[in-house]
Amino acid sequence: MAGNTFGTQFTVTTFGESHGAAVGCVIDGCPPGIDLDWDAIQAELARRRPGQSKLVTPRDEKDQLECLSGLDQDSGKTLGTPIAIMVRNQDQRSKSYEDWHHIYRPSHADFGYDAKYGIRAWQGGGRSSARETIGRVAAGAVAGQVLAARFPALRVTAWVERVHNLDARYAIDPTTVTRDSVDASPTRCPDPGFAADMETAILEAKKNGDSLGGYVRCVATGLPPGLGAPLFAKLDAIIAQALMSLPAAKGVEIGSGFSGPEFTGLEHNDPYAWADNTMTTSSNRSGGIQGGISNGMPIDCRVVFKPTATVLKRQDSADDAGNNVELQAKGRHDPCVLPRAVPIVEAMINLCLVDAFLQQRGQVGDPWPGLAGPLHGEG
Amino acid sequence: MAGNTFGTQFTVTTFGESHGAAVGCVIDGCPPGIDLDWDAIQAELARRRPGQSKLVTPRDEKDQLECLSGLDQDSGKTLGTPIAIMVRNQDQRSKSYEDWHHIYRPSHADFGYDAKYGIRAWQGGGRSSARETIGRVAAGAVAGQVLAARFPALRVTAWVERVHNLDARYAIDPTTVTRDSVDASPTRCPDPGFAADMETAILEAKKNGDSLGGYVRCVATGLPPGLGAPLFAKLDAIIAQALMSLPAAKGVEIGSGFSGPEFTGLEHNDPYAWADNTMTTSSNRSGGIQGGISNGMPIDCRVVFKPTATVLKRQDSADDAGNNVELQAKGRHDPCVLPRAVPIVEAMINLCLVDAFLQQRGQVGDPWPGLAGPLHGEG
Amino acid sequence: MAGNTFGTQFTVTTFGESHGAAVGCVIDGCPPGIDLDWDAIQAELARRRPGQSKLVTPRDEKDQLECLSGLDQDSGKTLGTPIAIMVRNQDQRSKSYEDWHHIYRPSHADFGYDAKYGIRAWQGGGRSSARETIGRVAAGAVAGQVLAARFPALRVTAWVERVHNLDARYAIDPTTVTRDSVDASPTRCPDPGFAADMETAILEAKKNGDSLGGYVRCVATGLPPGLGAPLFAKLDAIIAQALMSLPAAKGVEIGSGFSGPEFTGLEHNDPYAWADNTMTTSSNRSGGIQGGISNGMPIDCRVVFKPTATVLKRQDSADDAGNNVELQAKGRHDPCVLPRAVPIVEAMINLCLVDAFLQQRGQVGDPWPGLAGPLHGEG
Amino acid sequence: MAGNTFGTQFTVTTFGESHGAAVGCVIDGCPPGIDLDWDAIQAELARRRPGQSKLVTPRDEKDQLECLSGLDQDSGKTLGTPIAIMVRNQDQRSKSYEDWHHIYRPSHADFGYDAKYGIRAWQGGGRSSARETIGRVAAGAVAGQVLAARFPALRVTAWVERVHNLDARYAIDPTTVTRDSVDASPTRCPDPGFAADMETAILEAKKNGDSLGGYVRCVATGLPPGLGAPLFAKLDAIIAQALMSLPAAKGVEIGSGFSGPEFTGLEHNDPYAWADNTMTTSSNRSGGIQGGISNGMPIDCRVVFKPTATVLKRQDSADDAGNNVELQAKGRHDPCVLPRAVPIVEAMINLCLVDAFLQQRGQVGDPWPGLAGPLHGEG
Repeated sequence: MAGNTFGTQFTVTTFGESHGAAVGCVIDGCPPGIDLDWDAIQAELARRRPGQSKLVTPRDEKDQLECLSGLDQDSGKTLGTPIAIMVRNQDQRSKSYEDWHHIYRPSHADFGYDAKYGIRAWQGGGRSSARETIGRVAAGAVAGQVLAARFPALRVTAWVERVHNLDARYAIDPTTVTRDSVDASPTRCPDPGFAADMETAILEAKKNGDSLGGYVRCVATGLPPGLGAPLFAKLDAIIAQALMSLPAAKGVEIGSGFSGPEFTGLEHNDPYAWADNTMTTSSNRSGGIQGGISNGMPIDCRVVFKPTATVLKRQDSADDAGNNVELQAKGRHDPCVLPRAVPIVEAMINLCLVDAFLQQRGQVGDPWPGLAGPLHGEG
Repeated sequence: MAGNTFGTQFTVTTFGESHGAAVGCVIDGCPPGIDLDWDAIQAELARRRPGQSKLVTPRDEKDQLECLSGLDQDSGKTLGTPIAIMVRNQDQRSKSYEDWHHIYRPSHADFGYDAKYGIRAWQGGGRSSARETIGRVAAGAVAGQVLAARFPALRVTAWVERVHNLDARYAIDPTTVTRDSVDASPTRCPDPGFAADMETAILEAKKNGDSLGGYVRCVATGLPPGLGAPLFAKLDAIIAQALMSLPAAKGVEIGSGFSGPEFTGLEHNDPYAWADNTMTTSSNRSGGIQGGISNGMPIDCRVVFKPTATVLKRQDSADDAGNNVELQAKGRHDPCVLPRAVPIVEAMINLCLVDAFLQQRGQVGDPWPGLAGPLHGEG
Repeated sequence: MAGNTFGTQFTVTTFGESHGAAVGCVIDGCPPGIDLDWDAIQAELARRRPGQSKLVTPRDEKDQLECLSGLDQDSGKTLGTPIAIMVRNQDQRSKSYEDWHHIYRPSHADFGYDAKYGIRAWQGGGRSSARETIGRVAAGAVAGQVLAARFPALRVTAWVERVHNLDARYAIDPTTVTRDSVDASPTRCPDPGFAADMETAILEAKKNGDSLGGYVRCVATGLPPGLGAPLFAKLDAIIAQALMSLPAAKGVEIGSGFSGPEFTGLEHNDPYAWADNTMTTSSNRSGGIQGGISNGMPIDCRVVFKPTATVLKRQDSADDAGNNVELQAKGRHDPCVLPRAVPIVEAMINLCLVDAFLQQRGQVGDPWPGLAGPLHGEG
Repeated sequence: MAGNTFGTQFTVTTFGESHGAAVGCVIDGCPPGIDLDWDAIQAELARRRPGQSKLVTPRDEKDQLECLSGLDQDSGKTLGTPIAIMVRNQDQRSKSYEDWHHIYRPSHADFGYDAKYGIRAWQGGGRSSARETIGRVAAGAVAGQVLAARFPALRVTAWVERVHNLDARYAIDPTTVTRDSVDASPTRCPDPGFAADMETAILEAKKNGDSLGGYVRCVATGLPPGLGAPLFAKLDAIIAQALMSLPAAKGVEIGSGFSGPEFTGLEHNDPYAWADNTMTTSSNRSGGIQGGISNGMPIDCRVVFKPTATVLKRQDSADDAGNNVELQAKGRHDPCVLPRAVPIVEAMINLCLVDAFLQQRGQVGDPWPGLAGPLHGEG
């Protein structure tokens, strides 16, 4: 595999460069008989689309999806066959990129692509562009609807927790965050005070031709225990791969994460207790995953995005002919990817969960009664 | 795949439970003609073996490996066929575990395994035991020797950077750390002052029946640019999966990681400069990876391990019959997994790198002259 | 994997139903820097397209491909990123199919799909339609060009060897067959006498609403030894999977195949001899593959296609409500799939060979000097 | 993947050379809670072991298996974790092979291995030896028991149908063949008359230092419809790969196979009819598989094995230094692999079926009531 496919049961292969004809994905392994809500899928694309607010790149893309295959022409239900989804690129302006045809943008993927491939799509970010994530968001939305057919109580909710030095971690109670409270601000931070400050900071960075990074947190509630696997397919290992595969991601943590060592083992352990025949833990430093397998508590993770590499100021750099040069970037860019990253993170978590769910259905019996039994016809 | 295999070109499948007959691995895709140094592989097992110091579990295992296949009977060189490696378990004492046959140890994998499988190896950690990592360490040592055949300058060095609140990050200059300086202390922290304090802290925790967590950092130098891939096989995404798949890992970061947002984009970017026909960056906040592909600078990552879940004090817990109970753990356990985690982290990084290397040889041409051309016969 | 992807290094995922919006494929792992000849790819689609002669279905499809991704906007060369190719369906006439919305066509895939999925694309063959092979043919043509960049002497040539009881096996000398001699007849049998008889037989079957099966043989010359692998990835095992995955295929053989037991071992063995530093065998009962690995002699295989299941006569059948009924099929169908199968078989062989080639480049050193070294820039 | 792993849900990785320390396999994805009958597994190894009759190689191997992992130490039931199985090699006599250290045996894998790897296990067949199939037979026996837990009526029965020109096809009624009738003769042909003639022919070939090939047929009854997939994972495509991956296999056919074109479509089609709420077909030219998916009728396939390549007579050949030489083989060899191939073919079919079964459980709902629902606890 050349690395453009994710998943083992519900596999998603994305395709497309930022300045080519189209971007999209092929989903293989989607269960049959699901009545997908395409408006809801399109709505997820709208949440990640450029031009949605003054905080993000003004590139004007409608991102209207087209489903090419996998649906019954009669009922519209999934056939169990590959679902191909395509979005045409429309507002490419390759001219803006001519200056860096031969110059490597610092901390961008350009040099790595040249080193690996000996060629690159210099007219934009190519595969490393955020446009590639359209296929992920569409596939993640399909995955979310497959999961909802079995787990109506499931909620996968991500939000912007930090921008630059504005860290809202302790101001936000995860149990009260809803999609509405997230989308109430163009920053997608559910705390109004922090949201206002983040907005100001992003606009200030934009005015300066600079950029900001931050954290996105994601919590999934309403899932049973037993999802995941022991080793390389540990649910948290797959989540780590999924989130680190996003453009600009530099770290992932689950539960207590990098704060865990502040505690001793006795302090850190999450005590078990049965409550109404459901296993619970009175704390959730495990982030809902123990030994790679979900324990029924909220799955809680965090991903850090570095500040956008493309900044509109002069920088020292080098070209592909061995010269050290100055680079002045132009073009349309996100001064902060965080707001648009929220639906993308949710999509990746949905993809992790649906794959773990379909694995579990296939491999084992049914200690937890919801995992086996008919799936289709319930969507 | 049920998740016990890692890699796409150089695949490692590990097997074995902590209290079964044996643990080990099968490596598929090891290039032929490599003259493996089995003493060096055994030495890596010695670095991760229990009983090596008073800081770790006293379980007495010699961990003598046996290679079952894949070698030319004549020359001892690799045949290119599967290499099966086995270590027999010797000092199992399942009796110690009888108390938790039906009780779930807090923050351990027990409950998850029962939820997933409806059965578990209650006589120890089963697959979630650190004994499973024997197969990883052996395979990682083989991978390291394959890499060394092509990249003699490659050094993959991990060390303990933090234990509990003792964080040696700013006391250690990564460019001066060597395997000898790491192994000079049983803590595997290369800073003597911090090492002494960590040793005291671990022994204190052990005396209290408690446990401590911390950070391991790993740096790989001497590799060319061009390793990795754009998307789900990004080198950092695969490293994240690999390290998060380790027992007790709760987070992974590359380069600036969770500190990245402290900078603006202009501050965070790593300026490029050619030096002696080699691309360099004057800072390395990218941790040697941009857009998922190595840029030739040191690959720099960090993984956090929570404090060991097994503590020898009374804890609130629950059993598999719906009762809330108290648990008093017994047995032999690591009060701190960090020292033994060092060779395991190195092994996982070796596995990530060898797979990216073999992928690159297969998929593309040769912009970087070292990736193609004969490999065997150089070992 | 749900089975719509083929290959491990050069992977092809096909999508699309016969009566949906489009069919196509995504290729992942195509080497970079290849200057693909899109006219030649389109020409392969023309060879498999319906309506090309009176011997095949009159469904009128231009099968004009569109490449959505994976090409440098500047040079047109491959980027090493996924190549998505799409062909829109145009001449669907679902009305013809209404009669078998609920009736299973004998020996067709309808019942199996219902049994597996609980739903099926009854408005045509869905995924089991020959239209799905458009993605295979396009991908196979790309594969062929990748192979040609390294092996200019490679020729992959398939032809119709048998239709019904007309078996041209002994009339055709494989060493003289060329693409031109194959395409000289609409039957794609290179022996003019047999071709004329086959044409008559197919038209007679068409007139009767009946159908005919036969054999396609495929020979690949100009390849080095050393392609393939020992076990489940044996080159002949992969070829068997590839050819048996085609609609209506019921058997595959390599070299002497089902005739091999007529010989004793001494008679059957292919004696080796060096000739001009090249290993040759004086006979080729092995079909160019020994122990799963190519030996440099022509790769020689044969696949049998049953007579088309859809016939335009009354047949006994059953419906999806438990009734035994009569079925009178209508619609447009191939009275004999053999002529159109020729480019499809060639495509599958190309896909098998390119995958084995890229595996070999990645996994091992270079006993045969052509397998490593720069690939791109030679296209 | 380097090709030593088979399956996607129930994966088997085999390891070991004929003259190394051991051979065996690792099974990943075996469902938990199955109470495996190890005597039955050992009995399958006895059916394929050398030395079992005067018709096969006299190499004296007890082939006693050892299970290294994957079982509950308490109950013996499967844990759902990898099952590693090992058989030590005992009666290696590498000395017999010294003559062909540098000479390639005609139609054997030697030359291909050298071309691919630049090194080979010349002290026997290495990976191409029939000893490798020990891992397959053990894994196939485990697979058979997993299937039996769900499908108690399942019978997978293979037999020798042809040796040299002795073709018992029309003398054997597949519906009456049982394992006992197969094992009644050392030839494993269930027709006593043909069995006697085959025995004579094999002993005659042995006396002459020559060898014979033939056909093995395999029929699986008692399975539901709905197993398999549309494309590259078609059940017949996977069976073709599985059987063609066996040493000496040169062809595979399903149902009517290479005889199919003797019929027209109208004659060849299998008419459907409901009988007692079960779909049946009045003929079974499809061999139980249509469109890649099982239809509930017996799965019926045939594989051809060429005459053993190793013969004990002088042959023309070539060495690895460019010389054309004569070869006189010595050693212990099977004059006919067919009798020992029977349990191996059954094992491969079991592996194909269990993988299709576990895929079906995971991917879809449950139109056929037996595929979902609890599996373990039924063993």
